[in-house]
Amino acid sequence: MAILGELGTQVLIPVAGLIGIAFAVAQWVLVSKVKVTPGAAAAASAGAKNGYGDYLIEEEEGLNDHNVVVKCAEIQTAISEGATSFLFTMYQYVGLFMVFFALLIFVFLGSIEGFSTKSQPCTYSTGTCKPALYTALFSTAAFLLGAITSLVSGFLGMKIATYANARTTLEARKGVGKAFITAFRSGAVMGFLLSSSGLVVLYITINVFKLYYGDDWEGLFESITGYGLGGSSMALFGRVGGGIYTKAADVGADLVGKVERNIPEDDPRNPAVIADNVGDNVGDIAGMGSDLFGSYAESSCAALVVASISSFGISHDFTAMCYPLLVSSVGIIVCLITTLFATDFFEIKAANEIEPALKKQLIISTALMTVGVAIISWLALPAKFTIFNFGAQKEVANWGLFFCVGIGLWAGLIIGFVTEYYTSNAYSPVQDVADSCRTGAATNVIFGLALGYKSVIIPIFAIAVSIYVSFSIAAMYGIAMAALGMLSTMATGLAIDAYGPISDNAGGIAEMAGMSHRIRERTDALDAAGNTTAAIGKGFAIGSAALVSLALFGAFVSRAGVQVVDVLSPKVFIGLLVGAMLPYWFSAMTMKSVGSAALKMVEEVRRQFNTIPGLMEGTAKPDYATCVKISTDASIKEMIPPGALVMLTPLIVGTLFGVETLSGVLAGALVSGVQIAISASNTGGAWDNAKKYIEAGNSDHARSLGPKGSDCHKAAVIGDTIGDPLKDTSGPSLNILIKLMAVESLVFAPFFATYGGLLFKYI
Amino acid sequence: MAILGELGTQVLIPVAGLIGIAFAVAQWVLVSKVKVTPGAAAAASAGAKNGYGDYLIEEEEGLNDHNVVVKCAEIQTAISEGATSFLFTMYQYVGLFMVFFALLIFVFLGSIEGFSTKSQPCTYSTGTCKPALYTALFSTAAFLLGAITSLVSGFLGMKIATYANARTTLEARKGVGKAFITAFRSGAVMGFLLSSSGLVVLYITINVFKLYYGDDWEGLFESITGYGLGGSSMALFGRVGGGIYTKAADVGADLVGKVERNIPEDDPRNPAVIADNVGDNVGDIAGMGSDLFGSYAESSCAALVVASISSFGISHDFTAMCYPLLVSSVGIIVCLITTLFATDFFEIKAANEIEPALKKQLIISTALMTVGVAIISWLALPAKFTIFNFGAQKEVANWGLFFCVGIGLWAGLIIGFVTEYYTSNAYSPVQDVADSCRTGAATNVIFGLALGYKSVIIPIFAIAVSIYVSFSIAAMYGIAMAALGMLSTMATGLAIDAYGPISDNAGGIAEMAGMSHRIRERTDALDAAGNTTAAIGKGFAIGSAALVSLALFGAFVSRAGVQVVDVLSPKVFIGLLVGAMLPYWFSAMTMKSVGSAALKMVEEVRRQFNTIPGLMEGTAKPDYATCVKISTDASIKEMIPPGALVMLTPLIVGTLFGVETLSGVLAGALVSGVQIAISASNTGGAWDNAKKYIEAGNSDHARSLGPKGSDCHKAAVIGDTIGDPLKDTSGPSLNILIKLMAVESLVFAPFFATYGGLLFKYI
Repeated sequence: MAILGELGTQVLIPVAGLIGIAFAVAQWVLVSKVKVTPGAAAAASAGAKNGYGDYLIEEEEGLNDHNVVVKCAEIQTAISEGATSFLFTMYQYVGLFMVFFALLIFVFLGSIEGFSTKSQPCTYSTGTCKPALYTALFSTAAFLLGAITSLVSGFLGMKIATYANARTTLEARKGVGKAFITAFRSGAVMGFLLSSSGLVVLYITINVFKLYYGDDWEGLFESITGYGLGGSSMALFGRVGGGIYTKAADVGADLVGKVERNIPEDDPRNPAVIADNVGDNVGDIAGMGSDLFGSYAESSCAALVVASISSFGISHDFTAMCYPLLVSSVGIIVCLITTLFATDFFEIKAANEIEPALKKQLIISTALMTVGVAIISWLALPAKFTIFNFGAQKEVANWGLFFCVGIGLWAGLIIGFVTEYYTSNAYSPVQDVADSCRTGAATNVIFGLALGYKSVIIPIFAIAVSIYVSFSIAAMYGIAMAALGMLSTMATGLAIDAYGPISDNAGGIAEMAGMSHRIRERTDALDAAGNTTAAIGKGFAIGSAALVSLALFGAFVSRAGVQVVDVLSPKVFIGLLVGAMLPYWFSAMTMKSVGSAALKMVEEVRRQFNTIPGLMEGTAKPDYATCVKISTDASIKEMIPPGALVMLTPLIVGTLFGVETLSGVLAGALVSGVQIAISASNTGGAWDNAKKYIEAGNSDHARSLGPKGSDCHKAAVIGDTIGDPLKDTSGPSLNILIKLMAVESLVFAPFFATYGGLLFKYI
Repeated sequence: MAILGELGTQVLIPVAGLIGIAFAVAQWVLVSKVKVTPGAAAAASAGAKNGYGDYLIEEEEGLNDHNVVVKCAEIQTAISEGATSFLFTMYQYVGLFMVFFALLIFVFLGSIEGFSTKSQPCTYSTGTCKPALYTALFSTAAFLLGAITSLVSGFLGMKIATYANARTTLEARKGVGKAFITAFRSGAVMGFLLSSSGLVVLYITINVFKLYYGDDWEGLFESITGYGLGGSSMALFGRVGGGIYTKAADVGADLVGKVERNIPEDDPRNPAVIADNVGDNVGDIAGMGSDLFGSYAESSCAALVVASISSFGISHDFTAMCYPLLVSSVGIIVCLITTLFATDFFEIKAANEIEPALKKQLIISTALMTVGVAIISWLALPAKFTIFNFGAQKEVANWGLFFCVGIGLWAGLIIGFVTEYYTSNAYSPVQDVADSCRTGAATNVIFGLALGYKSVIIPIFAIAVSIYVSFSIAAMYGIAMAALGMLSTMATGLAIDAYGPISDNAGGIAEMAGMSHRIRERTDALDAAGNTTAAIGKGFAIGSAALVSLALFGAFVSRAGVQVVDVLSPKVFIGLLVGAMLPYWFSAMTMKSVGSAALKMVEEVRRQFNTIPGLMEGTAKPDYATCVKISTDASIKEMIPPGALVMLTPLIVGTLFGVETLSGVLAGALVSGVQIAISASNTGGAWDNAKKYIEAGNSDHARSLGPKGSDCHKAAVIGDTIGDPLKDTSGPSLNILIKLMAVESLVFAPFFATYGGLLFKYI
């Protein structure tokens, strides 16, 4: 048995989770100290001692300008209301979907033993297991819990982001360092809230379900897989809906504002500007959060379900069984320490220190986590144990699992740095793309697409090595643990990621509030670093999605009783071929959705410019709310076809063609989707930063291409606009495609194994 | 036994082949009757009766203008010389490659039994088989024969194309119908020459090798696979080298000519204009020809090698064994009849009859071929026989094979029509793309990419159904026969395909020779129809490549002794993942190559405009030869990295990681590559035709977007330029990637099976 006893485990996990939540609250309190109510600010400047002290130390412009504070507060409220209204509209549909899908899960899974309430002999261990009907009920409950946890965390993350953006703008008056800390802390609230609540709810769910299941761990962890499905299906709404929202608003605003009316980005005269800012929050924050939450929930479930039919489960070793949760617990503590390096141990003094500080976050968390994983593997695992490997049991040592988690962790870091190399304008790939703008938009697009294609090479090798090593050590459990390893520093990853849109919004608010050029320069510096880290975050999300889906795929074949998925069988091969096609179908839908929604936005913005007198002159206010409503309605409407494709494919293929073809579809979608996802998000990131490179003009080369408005810059803007849906909608949404199809197949595996393959049965 | 005896088979195949060659020669003679020597034309117009009669019947402008004829002849000579010079430069490298690779094949395959000259017991049938050393020798010989046949056919096809382009221009003076017949006949020369010589050489090779092998058919058809590798490796040079050549010249000419200097396409003042026209011939004619020749040779070899270890081979049933060749023989006769429908039975009178006439070619050939296949299946096959199916033998009826060939044939037609729907500007998809140009180049690109992604759906389902049905009927042999079915109407397909670049060149020559607007309108009508059919041809080439590679893959696993390719094995899965990445790596290389080569061309064209006085005014002649040289040198240099990726991957993976991982790589590259190939070529085709739609202005909608030079049109031109490398370089080159890796693996299979997997053996 392991060193850490059951009691230790039962204490460690919830304590780590609660520390994470407490830390998130603490960060929120620190952010809330920046006041946006003009009353308080006026009072402070009127003589309150602390305010007076600040004033003496940093004599910055506009620090006492009440109008600016009022304006910022107003804009923040508008953004927050827009985001909340979108999320609440979406929740109505989400609610309907959840009820319908919960019923579907219950009926499909309950039907396996004909809704019998009698216990059955277990499949893997000796003894009797609970009836399928009750497992269906608990799976449904787990599904709802996963969905609600994801929704609540995403909502709170979005709230704190919209709470923080104006505060970041106001802090930027005091210097770039203060603004950075505000933005980063707000990101950390989101990161810690999501990872901790995901852990705590999963932990409680397991313990509550255990009251019913008792010694039937097979059934217990089978029902827990619903939690992954719940988390992941919310990610569908967040990523796809949010992705369409944000880019419809962004592209629509740019096409009229920048191209037709020649007004700058984030200009308050543009009616779509608030919708654009709302989009950053619902797409990049709530969407990204739900995506990573889904990955976390799914990889935990995949690991647990494989462990339950391994020696951990069969010999009822609770501590070893909870190893995936223990790794995540250590991750929260490690990320907590890492965060202090950014906010407390060091201080940012100049703009060029931001990007290194964010990169250090990744390196520090990975290094510390490696040590943490070694310790917890030694404490929580028996020296030797066996892991289920498609019908057989495979012997594994505890240091073997350390390697699995570690290789996932480091592969994530490699993917992050490769992504940075291909998307940051500090390196030659993006500079070459910028240079190709000399001969126009066409060569810019050709070079950008080629860059995206090239950028998949190293990440794919990194993923392939992780898969090979972790699978060789501990079969599919190893892969699930590698995925959890990659996600163990999720709190830091999310903090960095959420920091980006907050800074972006802060810049927008500065522009809209009419703050000086100097403030805008500071927020731009924050934003530029955020762009690169956003690309890193996406690379990370895709890499983990690939590992997670493979782990889920492995868990699916185990549960469906498939021993071999033979490419030489035509049933499997056609699945593989059609599966590899699905990412294209899905991308066609999401890209077309952005295009159509953006065109609607263009019409509305044009209409407002043409019908509201004085809008261009700045004497009349645009109707922001209508644009917000158009984005909301369009994104929800346009989300249905791609969503249906993802949700229905496993059900149709499994029911009509059976588990073999479904295995092929999952493998095909995985190996094809991960490539498009990486290349799309890197191509888009590179175009964005090539444009920024020309705009910033920080080198002789960059200046020879610029300035803003030159032919080169116009070509770069075209590339940037094309990249928008690629990097923020179709690319990241593919994560959901590959993960959600896999987890859905896993949940419905017993049903497909029992009733699936109708078409082949009758032909 | 079958109805058709061995003697009948021995007569039917060479006779069909020779009829095809004779038909090609006859078409060439008909084309050559159009005189481009001014002497003859002058003599004719001076009173020779026939010429005088023509003059009376069709009183067309410029018919007696000697200067025009002289100019056309001059331009034709320049294009022909450029193309010949490119091909001869390429042949030097090809020669080196062939010698090196022939040695490699000999040494690798000879080493299997340690260069022993002793006979060995057979693997599948009883009795002794010839030693591996001699099979290595014959494989090498077959490789060289395949390569040389491909080269000679491609060269002759290119020669007739450059021989026909000016003749098409001159005939256009007499009417669109005459011009069409000239262009189509020249295309047919290429089509029939390639398909007939491919068949005849393969037939002779089999009979000659049989003199040595006698009853050892296992060894005989094993060595014949070299023929497929030879044909396919030439396709690498043709497709990749030719593809880079043509688009470097095209993009380079457009970027300076159209964008910077504002002179029309094909303007004789543009120094790159001859290189551009040469490119059409070396890329679209020689490249496409070698691609389809490779597919034909490979699918024949795949079918033969599987048949040799099935009951056909084991019971030495020569007629049934030659079934793949018999199907191709019938195909030649069917295509011959089909051609007469275009050139003799009906006459084209107006421009809008061209596209329907070409489409009818596809339908007629498919319908006739269905009957032909039914007859030959009944004549050549025993009623019942067994087919090798990964270790077991599977019973098949003769009508089963008819279904296999038939489903491939009809799947090809479906793919052709779907491609037409997505790339012709007669339908809504391209019109929507054209419409999206209203909001600029960015939306044009977004909609175009989405269109390409969407266009893969139906072709993939068509391929999947073909695979499932043909595999269920006759295992891998069924798939090889489905591929041959799709390729059985290759002579017609190639004729239609070669017709396109010939018409394109004819238009260029009309422009350069300063012929009237009316002539240019006629050649443009020919060209527009050719654009759509070119896209159909590409769809067809990709579809057949997918089936061919799967058949080769099946033959490879059979020969390598692999029984199961299990996705759940990490060795296979990482192969699958990395294989799915290879098309991206390859596309990144080819697209970057086009970009770099085009930039070199841009510099030279700019230099000539700046340094040659009187060039823009048309008083001085540009230096065409330097541009031709730049395209030649750049394409050959740039071809090496992608070529090395394709040729080395199977060798490295097979040697270091073994046959299982290699199987994964082949399957991954296949399922991922086919999607990118289809989407890239359709996206490019759609952009091209969206631009043409705006330029032609044939509807109210189109006129509202135009005219030439409007903002919409400019946006459409950007899309067209981006599409050039996608549709003519990276997209079609992927066919070669997936086929060549598979056939190379097949040839080296015994070596990998014996010595492969070094890395896993020592770790």
